[in-house]
Formats: sequence, structure tokens, C-alpha cells
Amino acid sequence: MDGDDVSEELDARYLEELKQRILISPFHQWAGMELLTVGGGNAEVAMELQPQHFNPQGIVHGGIIAAMADTSIGLALRSMLKPGFTHRTAQLNVHFVSKGEGNRIVGRGRSVHLGRRMGYGEAEVVDSTGGLLAKASATFIVLPAPGAF
Amino acid sequence: MDGDDVSEELDARYLEELKQRILISPFHQWAGMELLTVGGGNAEVAMELQPQHFNPQGIVHGGIIAAMADTSIGLALRSMLKPGFTHRTAQLNVHFVSKGEGNRIVGRGRSVHLGRRMGYGEAEVVDSTGGLLAKASATFIVLPAPGAF
Amino acid sequence: MDGDDVSEELDARYLEELKQRILISPFHQWAGMELLTVGGGNAEVAMELQPQHFNPQGIVHGGIIAAMADTSIGLALRSMLKPGFTHRTAQLNVHFVSKGEGNRIVGRGRSVHLGRRMGYGEAEVVDSTGGLLAKASATFIVLPAPGAF
Amino acid sequence: MDGDDVSEELDARYLEELKQRILISPFHQWAGMELLTVGGGNAEVAMELQPQHFNPQGIVHGGIIAAMADTSIGLALRSMLKPGFTHRTAQLNVHFVSKGEGNRIVGRGRSVHLGRRMGYGEAEVVDSTGGLLAKASATFIVLPAPGAF
Repeated sequence: MDGDDVSEELDARYLEELKQRILISPFHQWAGMELLTVGGGNAEVAMELQPQHFNPQGIVHGGIIAAMADTSIGLALRSMLKPGFTHRTAQLNVHFVSKGEGNRIVGRGRSVHLGRRMGYGEAEVVDSTGGLLAKASATFIVLPAPGAF
Repeated sequence: MDGDDVSEELDARYLEELKQRILISPFHQWAGMELLTVGGGNAEVAMELQPQHFNPQGIVHGGIIAAMADTSIGLALRSMLKPGFTHRTAQLNVHFVSKGEGNRIVGRGRSVHLGRRMGYGEAEVVDSTGGLLAKASATFIVLPAPGAF
Repeated sequence: MDGDDVSEELDARYLEELKQRILISPFHQWAGMELLTVGGGNAEVAMELQPQHFNPQGIVHGGIIAAMADTSIGLALRSMLKPGFTHRTAQLNVHFVSKGEGNRIVGRGRSVHLGRRMGYGEAEVVDSTGGLLAKASATFIVLPAPGAF
Repeated sequence: MDGDDVSEELDARYLEELKQRILISPFHQWAGMELLTVGGGNAEVAMELQPQHFNPQGIVHGGIIAAMADTSIGLALRSMLKPGFTHRTAQLNVHFVSKGEGNRIVGRGRSVHLGRRMGYGEAEVVDSTGGLLAKASATFIVLPAPGAF
């Protein structure tokens, strides 16, 4: 808990750059993660499920769910960070609630608290019918990063 | 907390089947995760890092670390489950500690508690020099699964 | 994740017994925790802060926040448990967000998922102005308890 | 994750002051928590269990376990903080493993990572026979605090 707010929003130009960055990110391309929306402390990412996203029990692998949660919360916080700051995930907690249905999942992250040193956000991961697969929460450290936006 | 132990060890035949299952699992092949050892409540998985495993900041993606943790703890617990039972991850908590070095990471999971209804395990993820990238803990539900081993 | 629902609501008589049980519970009396409402998957507990509830830095002690979260989530889930079942906290995760103001805190718990073997709930702890002190989540195991309500 | 270490140990004089501070802390007196040892990144606290420490099911209340974990990890980290810095718990995760036996519990905390901005530590809470009641982990933010030790 560290009070002072750095939550002035990024302008539209930066949001566009953020979308581009995800589009060309090798991790997100490989994982098949698509950024739907980001801005104002919220972010939504989607994934079309392929056979490699499931574990041997036929359930979406926990690592995939965790990646959706981490990415959506991280982008939600980043959309609120002032230029000159960056963030790193310090801790991620995921509760797996149900298997879900269909072959598309969406991660919806939001920034809940953003201070000078620490950020906190939450996400849910839902299936194509809106059914809840998982809920997640994450703690971030906020770092000065000269030149970063 | 649920007292009664179901921790009789799997025999060697089952451990071999467990290794085969990971070897042919689409998720683990795709992720590049290799099972090194499993048995007696411990499991070790490794990954040769490729460009797609990193986030845009050049750090191994949190989802990759989470997948290594979830898999290694899950296998560690499974090596202690009696035939006829299976498990599902109910909750996964990951603390990211440092960036690490080199291009190979190892996840070392262990079963800490295994009852009739609930299991608890822990893992660390280390780099090729033994440096600590992350520590993780997970809660599992234990389920009867007729025919499962 | 374990699908089948046991979420039929307790009837009013049981809710009254639940309130009585907290009223005479040595822990809740000692801690100064008061049950405001419980039912339908929600529970609210309050505490008038005394000097012993603060840590040496003048912030409400993490253990107090955790107790408010655990109690409010646990009661929220219990209000949805069928007679003959009980629950135990398997895992509790608390994010501390700000110091808060004033000398009264309220914990608001809710049941998010309740299956035959596992439950999941969330809470926030707020101060007297509605300011957010902490957010919490918890995993519960659900147990048959003959004779319990 | 934030690399730079601030882990130079406190000298003996400061450790003595730390013990005094807990001894006169209203929270710790009220809770019945006694500091056994602190220094070198480790801390041990004990509690003689009284009726008010149990929940209505006859199990040590989760809030008590959480307080033991938070205090022992916090003191373990504090024993490694340079003068001029302080810390706050950002996140606490507790896994409840068994009921335990007897009427004395001990919390053993250790500092696992301490950087300029973030600290991470772990604890176990055991009963008088050494039986494991709970395992915990916590994320801390590290703050400059002029005049603090």
C-alpha cells in the first residue's frame, strides 16, 4: 500500500503503440493471444483454443489460463502508468473454477490500485458462453524506466 | 485440511506411463517442456528457452513460469496418488523473484500434503546457474476417477 | 473445479442459528467482530478498531484484515451449503491496498463458486468511508458433516 | 523482481530494539504472540493457544495463523533491511494444511529475496509436536523511511 497515485491515463497514441507491441510480440503470437481492447485501466485478450492449449485431462492448461490472466491484468495496469514508468509482475494468484465450454476464451483484466511503488489488479477468464473458468489477482512493482512509455 | 492420507506411492510401471503421457502431450510438446524425473512426491521439468517464451521486456513470460510450476507440482502430487484417484489444480500462486540468466529453466515440484480431498504442493523455478526465478504453491482437489491411475 | 452445485440456500432458521453461533464464538467476541448480515451467498462483518488491532506502524495488522476476510468469505459460503455439509479454508490470499481511515472496518464476503468438493469466494475490507483496505480470495474444501447444518 | 540487494544485516543493537518493539506492541501483547528469535533473515514467534484463538469448529482460526505468518515473515525481512528503510506487506498467501495438536504454535519466517523495491518471504506454522498447520508466503514493498531502522 503506497498511496500516491500515478494513474493519469495514457493518451490514444500510446494505446495504439501498446496494441502494436502485443501484435508483434513473439510470445503472444505463439500463444495465439489477441488483444481486443486496452485503456482506462481495463484490458481484454482472447485466444482461439487449439489442441496444444489443453492438458492431458482435456482441460485448458493452467499455464494458459495464467498467461491470459497475467497479460490482461498487466496491460490494464500499463494503460494507467505515466510515461517514464514500467511494471513487473511480482505475484500472481489464480483460482481455477470450472472447465468451461467451446473453443474461445477471453481474459478481462482491470487495474484496482496503482501507487508509486505497487500496483494491484484482477482478472477473470471466461469461455465463449460467458462461463467463468478462473479468477486471478496480481501484485505488480512499479519502476521508473527512463524513456519507457 | 483433511487428514487421511492416500499417499501410497505409484509403482514403477505407473511412473513410466506418466512419463509417456507427458512425452506425447500436445501442450508439453508445444511448450517445449521435458519431464526429467518424477516419483516419490517430486517432479522435475525443464525447458530450453526460445524467443517465444519471453515477454516484450525480455523476461521469461509469467505464463511460462506458471506452466512450469503447475506442471511440476501436479506431477509431484500425481506420483503419490493412489490408483483410482485424480487431481485438479484449484489454486496456483506464483512469486516472481528475478529475471534469471541463460536459456534453460527447470521447475522442481514437490508434494507437501496429500489428503483424501485436498493436496498441497510447492515448486521453485530456477535458471541454468541455479538462480531462483520464482517460487510457487498450489492447492489441488483430489477426485475419485474410476479407471484412472 | 468440480461442477455439481450444492448451492440450495439455507432457510431463515439456519441463518439465525449462524448469527447466534458467531455471537457466542470466543474468537469473534475477543476479536471484536460483529456479524452484520449473512445469507444468499453474502456476509458482512464489522469491527470497531481498538489500539490492539494496529501494528507498530499504526496500520491495521495484517492478521486482523485476514481474519475479517476469512470470516466473511467463510460465512458467505456457509450460507449456501446444504445441511449435512461443512467447509474448511484450504487457502487464503490477501492483497493489502491502503491504510484506510477512521476506526471501523467492514469485511464483505461473497460466494463465487460452490461445488461438491470445493468452494471459492472473495471479499473486500473497507474503512468507514468506503475506502478499500484489502481484497481477498479463498479456496475452501467442502466436507460431508453428518448432523451439521 | 528488482535485483539490487539491500540485505546488509542489522547490527545487534537494532535486533534488541526490534524485540523490545514487539514486547510492547499492543497487537502482539493482545494476541499473545511472543518473539523467540530474530536475525539474519529468520524470525520465530510463538503463541500459547487460548479458547479465543479457536473457531467454532475447534480449529485455530485462520486469522490467527495468518497473523503468525505475517509477523514472522515481516520480522525476518526487517532483520535484513538497511537502516533508513521500512516495509509493508503487499500480499499474503496462506495454505492451511492440518488442524495440529496441543496448545502452542510456532511461526517460522524467513526472507527469501530482498531487493530495493520488493521483498519476498515464507513461513510455516507448526504445532508443539512439529506438525505442520500451515505454509505461507508474502510479498512486501520496501520503502525509504528516513529516521527508521
